[in-house]
Amino acid sequence: MNFTPLHDRVLVRRIESDEKTKGGLIIPDSAKEKPAEGEIIAVGAGARDEAGARIEMDVKAGDKILFGKWSGTEIKIDGEDLLIMKESDILGLLA
Amino acid sequence: MNFTPLHDRVLVRRIESDEKTKGGLIIPDSAKEKPAEGEIIAVGAGARDEAGARIEMDVKAGDKILFGKWSGTEIKIDGEDLLIMKESDILGLLA
Amino acid sequence: MNFTPLHDRVLVRRIESDEKTKGGLIIPDSAKEKPAEGEIIAVGAGARDEAGARIEMDVKAGDKILFGKWSGTEIKIDGEDLLIMKESDILGLLA
Amino acid sequence: MNFTPLHDRVLVRRIESDEKTKGGLIIPDSAKEKPAEGEIIAVGAGARDEAGARIEMDVKAGDKILFGKWSGTEIKIDGEDLLIMKESDILGLLA
Amino acid sequence: MNFTPLHDRVLVRRIESDEKTKGGLIIPDSAKEKPAEGEIIAVGAGARDEAGARIEMDVKAGDKILFGKWSGTEIKIDGEDLLIMKESDILGLLA
Amino acid sequence: MNFTPLHDRVLVRRIESDEKTKGGLIIPDSAKEKPAEGEIIAVGAGARDEAGARIEMDVKAGDKILFGKWSGTEIKIDGEDLLIMKESDILGLLA
Amino acid sequence: MNFTPLHDRVLVRRIESDEKTKGGLIIPDSAKEKPAEGEIIAVGAGARDEAGARIEMDVKAGDKILFGKWSGTEIKIDGEDLLIMKESDILGLLA
Repeated sequence: MNFTPLHDRVLVRRIESDEKTKGGLIIPDSAKEKPAEGEIIAVGAGARDEAGARIEMDVKAGDKILFGKWSGTEIKIDGEDLLIMKESDILGLLA
Repeated sequence: MNFTPLHDRVLVRRIESDEKTKGGLIIPDSAKEKPAEGEIIAVGAGARDEAGARIEMDVKAGDKILFGKWSGTEIKIDGEDLLIMKESDILGLLA
Repeated sequence: MNFTPLHDRVLVRRIESDEKTKGGLIIPDSAKEKPAEGEIIAVGAGARDEAGARIEMDVKAGDKILFGKWSGTEIKIDGEDLLIMKESDILGLLA
Repeated sequence: MNFTPLHDRVLVRRIESDEKTKGGLIIPDSAKEKPAEGEIIAVGAGARDEAGARIEMDVKAGDKILFGKWSGTEIKIDGEDLLIMKESDILGLLA
Repeated sequence: MNFTPLHDRVLVRRIESDEKTKGGLIIPDSAKEKPAEGEIIAVGAGARDEAGARIEMDVKAGDKILFGKWSGTEIKIDGEDLLIMKESDILGLLA
Repeated sequence: MNFTPLHDRVLVRRIESDEKTKGGLIIPDSAKEKPAEGEIIAVGAGARDEAGARIEMDVKAGDKILFGKWSGTEIKIDGEDLLIMKESDILGLLA
Repeated sequence: MNFTPLHDRVLVRRIESDEKTKGGLIIPDSAKEKPAEGEIIAVGAGARDEAGARIEMDVKAGDKILFGKWSGTEIKIDGEDLLIMKESDILGLLA
């Protein structure tokens, strides 16, 4: 199954960071929300500006990103848990 | 009866996904909202930009879409339960 | 008495759909709001865009429409109960 | 005393409709707000669009209008109770 | 001391209307807010439109105005209690 | 240490007005917020309009201003308590 | 690991100011929020104006800034605690 996000949305695969100790215990960092890491799988064609023209997307498929932990909508495609979010929810690119 | 959505609205037939086990039990996935699947039956002519010109729709009749589970207004046409929602409520296209 | 809606408003006559059984009992469908059906009696000249120019209306007198059950303001003209609503409250056209 | 509304405001004299029976009892219609009837006494020069140009008013002194019962600010000029409201509070014109 | 309001603000001297009886008793009119009367002492140069150009003020020093009773910020200049408000808080001009 | 406000912000030194009696007692004026007096020490380059061009500032360093008592963010530079606020928080100029 | 903020975001390293006495006691200043000091490590390419064109950033990597104490999102890159915030959260530049 193939999914194309609409407008300025992107499809993201969450990259779980390793927050466990070697013995398997979860180490809580702090109560403060930390951004999550992900990889962009697909991007929309872009939103339209107020004259109806496309606004080019600043990200592309394959980009590694950081995003707010609670951003986006969960979506299951072909049994895989993915996220759909707006480009504006992306904090920045990892390289 | 024929229905044409106004402005940037679309008419959607919900596609029920199979969330039951073979024995017929409903398997709750999680409390988190999952998007729903649907097929576009009709699209409006598009909203107008601030100069009054039409903004072209990005979807068309026949498109398979994902949308937020609680998006849209329920409407019964010729005895069939359909949904009217705005194009911006559509998360993306399935192909 | 003649009434002309201002700006992007329309004057609507509600078309009561038959939700009673033949024996006269009202059958509640569900708690979910269903759109109502109506006929447009008069339309305004249209709102103005941000340059002050008129934005053309997408509906005209005689159009059969669907609208949210709680949309519009009730108004009694010549003893008849009518509704004034904005064009954006109209979900779509029936034909 | 002469009063000129500013911008897109209008000065309105409320026309009391007769909701009493001949015996003088007030007949409550329903709990739903009904629009009120009025006559425009004076209009402002119009709001300015975002380029600073005037947006022409769609109503003029002498127009009979309908407006939401709770619209506008009460004002007493030369002992007469009048209303100041924005043009956008006017539902439509009676003719 | 000389005060020049910034942007689209005006400096207003409140004109107390006589709401007492001859015997000195205050007669409450109603619980509804009534507009207050004032005289404009100084006006700002005007706000800027979205292209950065000045939007001309519709009022000038010396104008008698009506404004909402609770509009503006109280300010004491040379021992006199005055009000600073935005032009949009002015309901209209008295002449 | 040198500080340059960003965009349409200004750096302000509060001018304490004398609200004490000669005997040193503070005389509360009223519960209503009164504007405070200050002097502008530095101004930003100006915000950008929606086309990205600078909007010229209406105030400059050295201007005496009035501003809402609770406007701005407190900042300590070289041991001195100053305020950073937006130009739009300034009520007007004293001269 | 290299991080590039998206749009009008900046990556900031917080500069801890010395609020301890020589004996090591923390001296609480007041309950009022004071701005914090930081250094910009990386800046985004800039937001887009409503015509889709880039709006140039007013800050660059290496700039020393003040920002509201609670601005931005905490992010850990290569074990270092950094902040991502929008340019508009920056109060001004220190030089």
